[in-house]
Amino acid sequence: MKFLIGKDREFLIKKSSNQTISTDKGMIDTKKLRIGKVVKTHLGEEFLVAKPNFYDLFSRIKRGPQIIRLKDGAYIAFRLGIKEGDKVLDCGGGSGAMTLILANIVGQKGKVISVEKNKKFCEIIKENSKFMGFNNIEVINSDLDDIDIEQFDAINIDLPAPWNHLEKIDKLLKPGAMVSFYTPNTTQAQRLRNEIKGFRFEGMYEIVEREWKVGGEICHPKFHILGHTGFISFYRKLG
Amino acid sequence: MKFLIGKDREFLIKKSSNQTISTDKGMIDTKKLRIGKVVKTHLGEEFLVAKPNFYDLFSRIKRGPQIIRLKDGAYIAFRLGIKEGDKVLDCGGGSGAMTLILANIVGQKGKVISVEKNKKFCEIIKENSKFMGFNNIEVINSDLDDIDIEQFDAINIDLPAPWNHLEKIDKLLKPGAMVSFYTPNTTQAQRLRNEIKGFRFEGMYEIVEREWKVGGEICHPKFHILGHTGFISFYRKLG
Amino acid sequence: MKFLIGKDREFLIKKSSNQTISTDKGMIDTKKLRIGKVVKTHLGEEFLVAKPNFYDLFSRIKRGPQIIRLKDGAYIAFRLGIKEGDKVLDCGGGSGAMTLILANIVGQKGKVISVEKNKKFCEIIKENSKFMGFNNIEVINSDLDDIDIEQFDAINIDLPAPWNHLEKIDKLLKPGAMVSFYTPNTTQAQRLRNEIKGFRFEGMYEIVEREWKVGGEICHPKFHILGHTGFISFYRKLG
Amino acid sequence: MKFLIGKDREFLIKKSSNQTISTDKGMIDTKKLRIGKVVKTHLGEEFLVAKPNFYDLFSRIKRGPQIIRLKDGAYIAFRLGIKEGDKVLDCGGGSGAMTLILANIVGQKGKVISVEKNKKFCEIIKENSKFMGFNNIEVINSDLDDIDIEQFDAINIDLPAPWNHLEKIDKLLKPGAMVSFYTPNTTQAQRLRNEIKGFRFEGMYEIVEREWKVGGEICHPKFHILGHTGFISFYRKLG
Repeated sequence: MKFLIGKDREFLIKKSSNQTISTDKGMIDTKKLRIGKVVKTHLGEEFLVAKPNFYDLFSRIKRGPQIIRLKDGAYIAFRLGIKEGDKVLDCGGGSGAMTLILANIVGQKGKVISVEKNKKFCEIIKENSKFMGFNNIEVINSDLDDIDIEQFDAINIDLPAPWNHLEKIDKLLKPGAMVSFYTPNTTQAQRLRNEIKGFRFEGMYEIVEREWKVGGEICHPKFHILGHTGFISFYRKLG
Repeated sequence: MKFLIGKDREFLIKKSSNQTISTDKGMIDTKKLRIGKVVKTHLGEEFLVAKPNFYDLFSRIKRGPQIIRLKDGAYIAFRLGIKEGDKVLDCGGGSGAMTLILANIVGQKGKVISVEKNKKFCEIIKENSKFMGFNNIEVINSDLDDIDIEQFDAINIDLPAPWNHLEKIDKLLKPGAMVSFYTPNTTQAQRLRNEIKGFRFEGMYEIVEREWKVGGEICHPKFHILGHTGFISFYRKLG
Repeated sequence: MKFLIGKDREFLIKKSSNQTISTDKGMIDTKKLRIGKVVKTHLGEEFLVAKPNFYDLFSRIKRGPQIIRLKDGAYIAFRLGIKEGDKVLDCGGGSGAMTLILANIVGQKGKVISVEKNKKFCEIIKENSKFMGFNNIEVINSDLDDIDIEQFDAINIDLPAPWNHLEKIDKLLKPGAMVSFYTPNTTQAQRLRNEIKGFRFEGMYEIVEREWKVGGEICHPKFHILGHTGFISFYRKLG
Repeated sequence: MKFLIGKDREFLIKKSSNQTISTDKGMIDTKKLRIGKVVKTHLGEEFLVAKPNFYDLFSRIKRGPQIIRLKDGAYIAFRLGIKEGDKVLDCGGGSGAMTLILANIVGQKGKVISVEKNKKFCEIIKENSKFMGFNNIEVINSDLDDIDIEQFDAINIDLPAPWNHLEKIDKLLKPGAMVSFYTPNTTQAQRLRNEIKGFRFEGMYEIVEREWKVGGEICHPKFHILGHTGFISFYRKLG
């Protein structure tokens, strides 16, 4: 894939693209594209040809149900403590955004198992995984409770009633490994905290992203922002 | 290294530790330690023996000057769009915390060059890099403007006057690659925005971490929090 | 005025209203309305008849340019330290929302002078003042620098370049009295701080309002919120 | 009372003060003090003599249990919609801070009844009321459920289990009047929301105050802040 970066717009060129693509500033012959070079449309508008980076692709994945935001996903992945070569399980979340973030850390020596009971969402995760170019992701169409595989270095859970799956999560985690739970409501995080056993509570967090408008004499937080995504709770398997 | 996880405390056991370590709950014979097993102190207190994960070590690195927080570092790394195998430059920040976060994504096929002009801080970064077990980090004791190496897939800058280094940053970046700037003051971010040329502004963000207290009937944000760390600005090299 | 409060909607009945008003749930005969009693539309929908309170009216004032939010206005008024009987000056802000908040504290023994150079906005302020029932507000159509009246117990300034009016503000304030400045950008607050003389800086604040959704098992901050209004700086006249 | 305002410190001079007070910058003869004039200590340090404003006194009241912050109190008072002449009930909160805020709006024609079951806290509220100079506050040493007086224009409740007092609150409120509940935990606000009947939910809010450091090239939120105070819920009596 190639990424065309203009002054105020971008285009992602998939390999399967037609030879000529048309932008609102004119047409571009895709045969001409060389990474690192500038290309002009037939109307003279310039675009830099680059390789898309992780975020360029991530922000263009197919969206199923609500998608995890980078601010939350990046924090979860690092707070789980995963590293190159780790084997991680991700369950829920539909579009696989979290799976992709985890896959970006564990790398080719590692593996992410993405468990999703909705078949349609499984297809989205597979599609997104392929789109991003990851080959370390395995998608399993199953309820979390029905899978029976080896133990993981870390687990991320984005399910509405995580307290119903604690026994299975316990079995799937290596001793001392971390599990994160992503829940929209304090109610869910609180119930989880009150029902979980055999785990050590490692903290509950809310990550707020404030985008700023800056330039010239302007410098203030943006007016229209997303006010909430979810609460993130971390636990460690003690036994 | 081994990590002893108790109900409400933890101990990191370095390889060079003495055979017997003493906790406030009694002594432990380090010869007995087996990963995944529980060990007891001579007073009967139980500790799980585990391998420390990335975060366990990261939160115990040696601190030089102010350290970047995970909420900011994880966000920067993913918003820069880096992935396995990338070559990334990190400059400033003293203790190397950001260098470690970047190294955890690029993996063994990638490389992080950490440029730091203070010799003492260079030693801290090297020490932390070794402590974390990374072998993909190279520390260069130099002013950013004096280094002359190949181009990078991404750059992170934590310097007080980043506008003085824009020409060098431009040279060190591949076309289309991203650079992030971490600045404590809006003033710095604004001056940077107004002086930078040849880059496309990709956004300025503030990441706020709210830790919550939860358990029983308690559910509220913690009272004592860190109110501010820094503003993060992202730019993309256009030319 | 009377206020009709239904389960999920409200109607303000001005004295000049027609005898019959029609809601989307049927018609109401306004001759029947008694404060504290429930009235039914001809379709049977119930509405409680009440007197509108300060906020009921405040949230329905005519809007000129951007209006100050209650979270900011209430904070400013109390942080200025005003009380019953005080004489306060309010300048800028167009719709007079801050004037109304100040008037609600100083009461009939006090006075609020609202200075506004735009004639059209003056009319809005007068209209809103009458709508709210205040008789302690005087609107002056003038540039701040051109007025010449006695000294005030407190002043609130909502002007884009407050540093241009510091000499006049100084003259208009009693010794030891407070002045607040409302500015959308950090840049403005910073320039003000760096140029003001003869005043003691009493703090700069940002007031963030998070509305929550709560009910049943739902409990989370609302998704769509206003991310920013303004920065509020307080100064005290020393001389 | 007189208020001595120096460059970086302040002194409140009560009427009962000795003739000479000593500051860390020298002694001041209190016979010399004239409002609006500057006085010097025997060491030459200058202080402006002023009348203390509402906030000067409010920030110096005697503290019993945890005190409500101005950001919350000012918002509650204005969102309740109270105005000059209103009769308001305040219950709980110990030190009477909210009572003082309410009293500052209703003025001498209005009244605030402060109900507090702890006798010691009652004395603090009375003392603070006298210190602030309010004569429109009546303190009643009683459980909320035991009082039996006329109906109020608004009520503020700061009790740990407000759902236990809903029947009494209903009786004490005029039809269409507002009640606010201040609760530290989401759990309390949620239980209240789920148990209350005959009231219309008007919103649940969290008010976050961010203080900024500004001056010279410095411009950033302060590092050490209070991360949480309470959640504020508003309801309207429908019947």
